[in-house]
Amino acid sequence: MRNIEVCLSPELIHLYDTKGKNVVIVDIFRATSTMMAALANGVSSITPVMDLESCRAMAPAGYVIAGERNGLTAEGFELGNSPLAYLNHAYAGQKIAMTTTNGTLAIEKTKDEANQVVLGAFVNLKATAQYLINQSQDVLILCAGWKGKFNLEDSLYAGALVSSLHPHFQTDCDTAIALKSLYESNSHRLQIFLGQASHAKRLQNHNIEADIDFCLSVDLYDIIGFLEGDELVGIPSKDN
Amino acid sequence: MRNIEVCLSPELIHLYDTKGKNVVIVDIFRATSTMMAALANGVSSITPVMDLESCRAMAPAGYVIAGERNGLTAEGFELGNSPLAYLNHAYAGQKIAMTTTNGTLAIEKTKDEANQVVLGAFVNLKATAQYLINQSQDVLILCAGWKGKFNLEDSLYAGALVSSLHPHFQTDCDTAIALKSLYESNSHRLQIFLGQASHAKRLQNHNIEADIDFCLSVDLYDIIGFLEGDELVGIPSKDN
Repeated sequence: MRNIEVCLSPELIHLYDTKGKNVVIVDIFRATSTMMAALANGVSSITPVMDLESCRAMAPAGYVIAGERNGLTAEGFELGNSPLAYLNHAYAGQKIAMTTTNGTLAIEKTKDEANQVVLGAFVNLKATAQYLINQSQDVLILCAGWKGKFNLEDSLYAGALVSSLHPHFQTDCDTAIALKSLYESNSHRLQIFLGQASHAKRLQNHNIEADIDFCLSVDLYDIIGFLEGDELVGIPSKDN
Repeated sequence: MRNIEVCLSPELIHLYDTKGKNVVIVDIFRATSTMMAALANGVSSITPVMDLESCRAMAPAGYVIAGERNGLTAEGFELGNSPLAYLNHAYAGQKIAMTTTNGTLAIEKTKDEANQVVLGAFVNLKATAQYLINQSQDVLILCAGWKGKFNLEDSLYAGALVSSLHPHFQTDCDTAIALKSLYESNSHRLQIFLGQASHAKRLQNHNIEADIDFCLSVDLYDIIGFLEGDELVGIPSKDN
């Protein structure tokens, strides 16, 4: 029986064995949700980078660069971090370089040992679950968190995924048990419950409620996203 | 309005400000539960120590030494880590030196900056909540966890305490919000839910179900426990 575990923060990842596992990176507000929106709307690849400078340096090589500071599109950048910018195939066929501090850190800490690094987001929850069920590897869900701390939105997604993988996977991981219960008792009021989250409040202060609503929409896309070399790419889940 | 936060592991404590706060240390299976049982049954003090050797060295100074290895009383020790050994005032008036790796680590990491270090256990949940409500300080609950990881029993206690402190405290801590919900949706079946916990399973393997039952008993004692110098002492909650 395959096993599933959840790590609540990149700061705790050294306590987990990632070797040979399918690692699901979760950064609901907004990195992994935005990445899935971009991939589902036809961008050819996304290269995640840690900071604005590294991102800016990729523009001359033909990348569309996406980065934000304090909720606004960073100076000299074409895109911020809103998932909505990619809708209607606005950047189909383009290569994106995207800054995401927490998400990039989570990818960097796991990509060498993992069998595969997969993107986790509510917008393609069912597709990702079905993909993982079809594979033979153990699963480790890594929440990007917020500055190293537990956060509510990533944890609820982790609980939703554990719930979706049950009973195909077993667990003796207390985090997985707790978050499955947390998700199942709040799934009927996800938006209200998450309205309490510290990060949702921060985003509301930036007038991006539409982004929050989008990131909490479930199963918009039937696409999975994963790391190939240093690029994130998407494939239709039926191809697996 | 006073604030309440929860830190899920000593490995994350550097992300929190402990200065001037009342820090509640939680190690349900079994350190803090055993300490409260001892204090409620009249021991004069408990000195927490990291390892068996440091503990053994305190015996000549008149301490009753308590320590375990693999669920059994360690060689040359009078007591293991079972709370049941202290019932019926078996060690009333005595000074105890007790090994507890996770619990001692949690105390060491917070005692210098904290206003007060308080013991958290289900056996005196209400007394501790009432004590904290009567104080003016912010509260930080620190779960001892298991080898650095999240664990279910400490987290559920944290949720129970957050729930008990509501609405006297506010929070913008996602961990506190999540655990309050987790506790409230499982409080009617705490023993069943915790039966899934990895640590409970480990303890069951050692045939100490009676210890588990004791550690999950709520409000047996109307005593609070806190650190005074390097010793843990108890006082009746009505004295506050």
